[in-house]
Amino acid sequence: MNALPLPPSGCFATGADGPLHLYAVRAYFEDTDLSGVVYHANYLRWFERARSDMLRLLNVDQRAAQEAGEGAYAVAEMTIRYAAPARLDDDVLIETRIEELGAASIRLVQVAFRRTGVEENAVHKGPMLAQARVRVGFVAPDGRPRRQPAAWRTAYAQFLAGADQATQFSSPNQPGTP
Amino acid sequence: MNALPLPPSGCFATGADGPLHLYAVRAYFEDTDLSGVVYHANYLRWFERARSDMLRLLNVDQRAAQEAGEGAYAVAEMTIRYAAPARLDDDVLIETRIEELGAASIRLVQVAFRRTGVEENAVHKGPMLAQARVRVGFVAPDGRPRRQPAAWRTAYAQFLAGADQATQFSSPNQPGTP
Amino acid sequence: MNALPLPPSGCFATGADGPLHLYAVRAYFEDTDLSGVVYHANYLRWFERARSDMLRLLNVDQRAAQEAGEGAYAVAEMTIRYAAPARLDDDVLIETRIEELGAASIRLVQVAFRRTGVEENAVHKGPMLAQARVRVGFVAPDGRPRRQPAAWRTAYAQFLAGADQATQFSSPNQPGTP
Amino acid sequence: MNALPLPPSGCFATGADGPLHLYAVRAYFEDTDLSGVVYHANYLRWFERARSDMLRLLNVDQRAAQEAGEGAYAVAEMTIRYAAPARLDDDVLIETRIEELGAASIRLVQVAFRRTGVEENAVHKGPMLAQARVRVGFVAPDGRPRRQPAAWRTAYAQFLAGADQATQFSSPNQPGTP
Repeated sequence: MNALPLPPSGCFATGADGPLHLYAVRAYFEDTDLSGVVYHANYLRWFERARSDMLRLLNVDQRAAQEAGEGAYAVAEMTIRYAAPARLDDDVLIETRIEELGAASIRLVQVAFRRTGVEENAVHKGPMLAQARVRVGFVAPDGRPRRQPAAWRTAYAQFLAGADQATQFSSPNQPGTP
Repeated sequence: MNALPLPPSGCFATGADGPLHLYAVRAYFEDTDLSGVVYHANYLRWFERARSDMLRLLNVDQRAAQEAGEGAYAVAEMTIRYAAPARLDDDVLIETRIEELGAASIRLVQVAFRRTGVEENAVHKGPMLAQARVRVGFVAPDGRPRRQPAAWRTAYAQFLAGADQATQFSSPNQPGTP
Repeated sequence: MNALPLPPSGCFATGADGPLHLYAVRAYFEDTDLSGVVYHANYLRWFERARSDMLRLLNVDQRAAQEAGEGAYAVAEMTIRYAAPARLDDDVLIETRIEELGAASIRLVQVAFRRTGVEENAVHKGPMLAQARVRVGFVAPDGRPRRQPAAWRTAYAQFLAGADQATQFSSPNQPGTP
Repeated sequence: MNALPLPPSGCFATGADGPLHLYAVRAYFEDTDLSGVVYHANYLRWFERARSDMLRLLNVDQRAAQEAGEGAYAVAEMTIRYAAPARLDDDVLIETRIEELGAASIRLVQVAFRRTGVEENAVHKGPMLAQARVRVGFVAPDGRPRRQPAAWRTAYAQFLAGADQATQFSSPNQPGTP
């Protein structure tokens, strides 16, 4: 029998520009519009999934913070360039890098690539589909900016310190984790 | 280093009611609404992802059929009952069964469960979240019903013949597949 | 200069089966998928807009109830039949009837029609696109069913008592209201 | 009886920076996420509705161009700043200006405001919610950039020439149009 299906889950790696988070999505009917390609706004949903997965792997519990009334991240600013269209059933890889870590906000760079194949320890990247620079701010329930929880900033700093430490952040739900 | 991230991909299994397709999703911010739980319409998107993944694993190429002008599946009818809410970060398992295979349409039963854990060869199901009965029909580009491609019906019939043959349908992108 | 744009807003009327709420939407790119027609799950979003508009016209303040921690409506059950596809730029009319008013839940029937024209006091209905029977339940923040606020049930009862009283519910934002 | 409901429709006006398109939306449950405010990606859907409405009022028939295989607009680039959150039932006004008209693309500025009231010939603007600069390109079905249809560019030029001519573009479905 096949492996049991696992929820989509990313991992950490080291890229040319330093530590990266990698996340995979597939394009479904829900993502497309009548022009036959993925609707532009849906890349923002994909990028949000990748950011949330990165936080989860860093043991940043957004739901607990939300339920405890501490606050939540809100996108403050985003610039996105669309380079090539994604089509139904395309396998897409999303790379997320932390560009700048502030007291109350984080700047990230996120890039979506079409995948052309998978091999042991290697991803075959196809064309770049879209590239975004995003600033997210932590906001209190009253909507005012608030410093991110200290434990979260520590986790981000550890991640930024290098992917060789990143494996310690691996998720129990991660496919193929020993 | 961790395993490379793979696109969400399901598998086949045998349930009490016969052959099943299993598919996993996670609830993200995009899926929720201000009541704090997953917005009701988004279960239909999750169920569509599961159906599309099942077809892909059966080598049914919806995109090729669409691009060749043969046609596409359209949901003709759906009954859905919401049993319990899904919340942010919940791991959700979707079971899909083919209930009835017609010349131009298929009846399916799809059930979403919260997952409470994963073990070798075992999924720990939590409460049922939603259950749907769906009828999808194959329609020509002009919108008229059309018989499904013969190869597709054969694939469905093989799947219905039993999950012990299902492994032959396993996807190259399937996590953990040898 | 043209009239100022007003938010989409419905009205009450009397149909063959009694009092109705009418709501208009237009199909945009966001609503379609690559098959060229409106994605099936998006009718649920349209129906939710129509229900929320009906409640708003009945002075049922869902946001206040949510913010006060009283609760919110959740869809408990829905059966939907898709009769004909909606396409980009189609003008769609949604009729909503209250079928049954319970202590903690409401059964509604919602039908979407393509519009073929508008005249003074007359809507030209095109083909039916989709028809749904929906049961929504009022739920407390802890997820348990709860009786709907008494004032809300009174408003629904007044509406059910007849559309000739319905005009008293007209919204200040209603286009063309004297 | 109240006025019949009309599909959401905008209008043209003259702003401090010249001719504008105005479009109104309301925030529904579908637009929000668990943080209680409108999900960031949904502003892109609102902005797309406003652009499509502007085109429709200019007699630019996107659907006909799509069905004739001429091509469609695709968002090439967008920068968006989120200034204040929108909440359930908020009435939102979207202003769209054409910033630059090219052979194959258009640069637009779109701003969303909360509305605090409506009066004869006057809109009361509340706080700015989000501001976006968008570049859309016309692309052939094969995905390559293509010059926009000449008639479309003429319509844009007429619009840019001044809102006093804009009334000639008014839609038959426009609320309150004589």
